[in-house]
Amino acid sequence: MDETFKVTPWEVTGKVDYDKLIEQFGTQKITPDLKDQIRDLAGDLHVMLRRDVFFSHRDLDLILQDYRSGKGFFMYTGRGPSQAMHIGHLIPFLFTKWLQDRFGVNVYIEITDDEKFLRSQEYNLDQTRQWSVDNITDIIAVGFNPDKTFIFQDTEYIRNMYPLSLKIAKKITFSMARATFGLDLSSNVGITFYPALQIVPTMFERKRCLIPAGIDQDPYWRLQRDMAEGLGYFKAAQIHSKFLPSLTGPEGKMSSSDPESAIYLSDPPKIVERKIMKYAFSGGQPTIELQRKLGGNPDVDVAFQWLYYYFEQDDYKIRKMEEDYRSGRMLTGELKQILIDKLNEFLEAHRGKRDEAQKLINDFKHDGTLAQEMWKKIHE
Amino acid sequence: MDETFKVTPWEVTGKVDYDKLIEQFGTQKITPDLKDQIRDLAGDLHVMLRRDVFFSHRDLDLILQDYRSGKGFFMYTGRGPSQAMHIGHLIPFLFTKWLQDRFGVNVYIEITDDEKFLRSQEYNLDQTRQWSVDNITDIIAVGFNPDKTFIFQDTEYIRNMYPLSLKIAKKITFSMARATFGLDLSSNVGITFYPALQIVPTMFERKRCLIPAGIDQDPYWRLQRDMAEGLGYFKAAQIHSKFLPSLTGPEGKMSSSDPESAIYLSDPPKIVERKIMKYAFSGGQPTIELQRKLGGNPDVDVAFQWLYYYFEQDDYKIRKMEEDYRSGRMLTGELKQILIDKLNEFLEAHRGKRDEAQKLINDFKHDGTLAQEMWKKIHE
Repeated sequence: MDETFKVTPWEVTGKVDYDKLIEQFGTQKITPDLKDQIRDLAGDLHVMLRRDVFFSHRDLDLILQDYRSGKGFFMYTGRGPSQAMHIGHLIPFLFTKWLQDRFGVNVYIEITDDEKFLRSQEYNLDQTRQWSVDNITDIIAVGFNPDKTFIFQDTEYIRNMYPLSLKIAKKITFSMARATFGLDLSSNVGITFYPALQIVPTMFERKRCLIPAGIDQDPYWRLQRDMAEGLGYFKAAQIHSKFLPSLTGPEGKMSSSDPESAIYLSDPPKIVERKIMKYAFSGGQPTIELQRKLGGNPDVDVAFQWLYYYFEQDDYKIRKMEEDYRSGRMLTGELKQILIDKLNEFLEAHRGKRDEAQKLINDFKHDGTLAQEMWKKIHE
Repeated sequence: MDETFKVTPWEVTGKVDYDKLIEQFGTQKITPDLKDQIRDLAGDLHVMLRRDVFFSHRDLDLILQDYRSGKGFFMYTGRGPSQAMHIGHLIPFLFTKWLQDRFGVNVYIEITDDEKFLRSQEYNLDQTRQWSVDNITDIIAVGFNPDKTFIFQDTEYIRNMYPLSLKIAKKITFSMARATFGLDLSSNVGITFYPALQIVPTMFERKRCLIPAGIDQDPYWRLQRDMAEGLGYFKAAQIHSKFLPSLTGPEGKMSSSDPESAIYLSDPPKIVERKIMKYAFSGGQPTIELQRKLGGNPDVDVAFQWLYYYFEQDDYKIRKMEEDYRSGRMLTGELKQILIDKLNEFLEAHRGKRDEAQKLINDFKHDGTLAQEMWKKIHE
């Protein structure tokens, strides 16, 4: 089974062997030493670093070096807007926000209302722009600094990005884009141009750029790394996460297109309870008796995995939970109930912050200190 | 020889058979009846219509119908900026200006600083933007109405065009663009997107758009005509010209890349005289005696062709000239001298207007009535 996994920017299938992926992609493992360096600088270590959810990188060591030397760095992430965001979508933003807090750096968040429209025959541009506003609200609710974060939609910020995007586009042939982005001759000419626009924000500042993202996105940035220095910018650094498993099983990654495999940020407590109880793939035994006797397998149990990835941040508790589950002292239902409570607590808090966030959209897009600067810049 | 001509948007070779081209391209001939209709509405007939320099069209009859019924129409043309414009570049603008005067319509002029940059490895974006300003000055000098003409550079106006360009791009596959625009797998992803941006201005108004251009440009607009109605706009109408022959011969078309084959707008009188005397392909006989005896051939004589296309607008004089040349009463040197005088008179007047035009750039790009409206519009 380990032989059959597949990770591309547009498809993740099978049970991913992350060590093998590091080898395949040619990235670096986040070593204990690198974690120590981060802890020294940040004061603590984010749960997703402690547990190797963020496990791989490119040039993260150089990012820390630039930070220490006073050169600094900035961060870039993005989102293809969708009708509703799920828990899996929020994870990289939570981590990015932590890095912003600890390192005090600028964060640029690209909302690709153009790409989403171009990718699917089902969507019209009004939809992807409406979803953008909705998704931006969820992103703001994560708690970014409004004076150090610029959130922009491609269709609105294009004038400022276009000259640089042309210089980038001139260095990407159709063949290169086809291989990297999974295009073919029947792809539309809008989506063939999009890779250039995705690269522009990595050059928003003459500093090193750090991109936190799922490791499946790595191939996109190889193009950037091939051309960046020729254009007078830095190769983009990256910090890669594993995939939050879908509710229904430990393989692949969570997908919006299957509503039962995901918990949406808008799901009310009863729905969360029902989905977890009904669909969360269990590593437990078929009966209580067998569970008590044989124990469960937390490595494939989705409820445990979600708690481990983020929702149970207490390291002692999660280790205890793992032991109890593996030994049979803890039942599947008990584990699921812990996750349900944690998730609903998280979602309730998020929705409270979302109401506040609605009033801040204009700050992040236009009026904040960084946003104001960015609207004055034409990137060249 | 008639069998061997070739006309594509990126190459014109051989002696073009224009009747055959109408058949090949599936366009319509501008009939005497259509010319009468134009004369009735315009009050007169431009020299290039009288002499069939503009000879072919698509939907020009519908344009006139819309004009008569009060629906109106608008015009669109453009320019890929180059270091220096030559006489051949100015011809379509002179004709467009005449149509604007006679029909009182809006004219949109797209300056494709992006495409020019993307097409050639030699140019950088600063160059194509500098050339844009220079070329815009020459275009303004033609005499367009500053309140009914909007001249825009793609790199500056992109924000206003981008949403509509995405809708257009979504309907053009790479295969389609490849066939129409002469691309291949090694073409860069900027140039593959460009066809969408070229189509946007045909949809600047909810009226029929008339494009005056060389007939070699026709294939570009077939894509537009296939999709326009699906997007809620009109198929672009066109009025097609023949090619002003290059100085050095009656085949192909004038090219900037061969400086001796073209007269530049900046060429001083002595250079014009030297180029015409030295390089202008002659239909005359090798000696004065033979010319007197056998006569010359105005059909291939470039000096005569240039006078016929535009520079001798008196129909009586041009007919007399043709007869005198064909019969041997007029010598090649005499014919060339007439062209030299006409050209230098034209160029001197143009350069005078060019000085004025420099002060008007901002009106055409930003402050004129139409320009102001256009900067407020996001095309959707």
